[in-house]
Amino acid sequence: MRTIDWVTSSSRSSGFIRLVDQTRLPGDMVMLDIDSVDGLIGAIQRLSVRGAPALGVAGALGVALAAQNHDPDKARDESSKLRRARPTAVNLSVGVDRAMAAFDADGAAGALRAALALRDQDIEFCLAMSARGADLVRELVGVSAAGTGAVTVMTICNTGGLAAVEHGTALGVVERLHLDGDLALAIACETRPLLQGARLTTWELGRMGAAHRLIVDSAAAMTLAGGGVHAVLVGADRIADNGDTANKIGTFSLAIAAQYAGVPFIVVAPETTVDSSTATGAEIEIEDRGPEEVCMFAGIPTAPEGTAAGNPAFDVTPAALITAIVTERRVIRPGGNR
Amino acid sequence: MRTIDWVTSSSRSSGFIRLVDQTRLPGDMVMLDIDSVDGLIGAIQRLSVRGAPALGVAGALGVALAAQNHDPDKARDESSKLRRARPTAVNLSVGVDRAMAAFDADGAAGALRAALALRDQDIEFCLAMSARGADLVRELVGVSAAGTGAVTVMTICNTGGLAAVEHGTALGVVERLHLDGDLALAIACETRPLLQGARLTTWELGRMGAAHRLIVDSAAAMTLAGGGVHAVLVGADRIADNGDTANKIGTFSLAIAAQYAGVPFIVVAPETTVDSSTATGAEIEIEDRGPEEVCMFAGIPTAPEGTAAGNPAFDVTPAALITAIVTERRVIRPGGNR
Repeated sequence: MRTIDWVTSSSRSSGFIRLVDQTRLPGDMVMLDIDSVDGLIGAIQRLSVRGAPALGVAGALGVALAAQNHDPDKARDESSKLRRARPTAVNLSVGVDRAMAAFDADGAAGALRAALALRDQDIEFCLAMSARGADLVRELVGVSAAGTGAVTVMTICNTGGLAAVEHGTALGVVERLHLDGDLALAIACETRPLLQGARLTTWELGRMGAAHRLIVDSAAAMTLAGGGVHAVLVGADRIADNGDTANKIGTFSLAIAAQYAGVPFIVVAPETTVDSSTATGAEIEIEDRGPEEVCMFAGIPTAPEGTAAGNPAFDVTPAALITAIVTERRVIRPGGNR
Repeated sequence: MRTIDWVTSSSRSSGFIRLVDQTRLPGDMVMLDIDSVDGLIGAIQRLSVRGAPALGVAGALGVALAAQNHDPDKARDESSKLRRARPTAVNLSVGVDRAMAAFDADGAAGALRAALALRDQDIEFCLAMSARGADLVRELVGVSAAGTGAVTVMTICNTGGLAAVEHGTALGVVERLHLDGDLALAIACETRPLLQGARLTTWELGRMGAAHRLIVDSAAAMTLAGGGVHAVLVGADRIADNGDTANKIGTFSLAIAAQYAGVPFIVVAPETTVDSSTATGAEIEIEDRGPEEVCMFAGIPTAPEGTAAGNPAFDVTPAALITAIVTERRVIRPGGNR
């Protein structure tokens, strides 16, 4: 299954974007067909498509869509608007910029070629970082052979195929461990307020047949301190030059708890997430998504009407708390030896 | 307003327990009248009445109810059953035991007198610990005079009047700071899975006119590390002899984050919560409430059907992470100097 793809329909004169509507999962598996940049921005902002790698591909495909539908000036305007649809994940702007450069060089066909190349690369890179991450986890746990069934990991948010094109980043590592017969249990933090862990990660783990258990985010510290969890695996939305990592709200909390419990904390993300133009985490813009996601669930109030709520969608984990950052081509150890 | 009380109705030949149905808040303010121990156990288990101090009074009033309604043997059986309705908060068993001792000495009238004395004492003790806690917070912040409007605190779960009889424990301290004109902002963690912070604490803060903001539990670490929060104030369900403290799930996570950020972490609870027969936190039984509270919200699934979920209702914060424990008669500093 592809989370996001480009479709050239015989019944239409041109192509369009097809993506899984993740707001409907796990209840319904519904595909959305998107043929305008405005439609794509809406899908991004309401999180029908989400996850840093998927946003990168969405950005590039969005430029291809704009280039196909509009004259060059309008296509550039639309692409700039798309680039700003969400501020924290660097991949969205990287995807837009890559397709825009190809558009400037080779026009609409070039933009589409660049977007499809990014899509294919995402699949390849996710498989590569999953294999590298699984090897690292086995090394940290002290498991050398595959098939041990010995490894228990914890994760937050959704970093699986739904956050990328076909395979995931941190959850890609979990899938690799599972396929190799090394996974005992994957513990998914539910990830308030939008429950990507409860809704999406459990759904993916179920589909892959991996043993898993769901907990509320605030039970992670107790679970880690209780022993038996070998590694925490998380994704990233933007990694600063010094290794500080922006990711889903709660990641920082999990990193502090992992350090307290002495559990390795591993970030898994493509090189496109590493933003060398951002020196430290302090420079990363954190999107606040407003009070409604905190004060309502499925249209039902969870707090008195009018309650003021802070809703940062991301936090920044200092490099010192990170055991390793795994990409498709290297393992970075920003926190030094632990 | 009293969260729980004894009512002698002229239209009935005997008394009964009246309590706020906290499962209906903040939407509806509904009182429940309870005239059987089974009814009371049901109310306790579905959390219509909750909070360690309120459970203590509920336990004592439940014995008075059993003593009034049944012969002595049956009354003792019912009271034993009530004593086991929830395992973690020590106050429930303390309340039952206190009223049972009075029953053994002076019969049904004695049990009722003891229960009403516990109710009155709760009000007095909560006021005393609130004043002492507010003084401690002012001392830690370096605010000597009242009326500064300078203090920002964070709390989890609900430890207000709804968790006691009229005034709260940790939220009682917040109320004291507010009444003294020293509160800038109270930050409430929503407290998954049952959202006591979102539903109840914000409701109480709103009623007292105190400035407040709601966050998801996993945003606490980022908020604390961001600076500007002067103290974390929490309640307790059982405090072991060495100071290890069982409280709502997420408290331990908050304590680790507070230590990381250098923010004082203060437990506020009556002396009845201190259980000297429990040597350390490792001996405290933690209630697991089953998967449904995690996997459903208001009847709507939040995870795929059949998802396995851990749902520990409490965690244990090691004494070393606790700056101070404030009771109605003393300040204990289990973690030594920080």
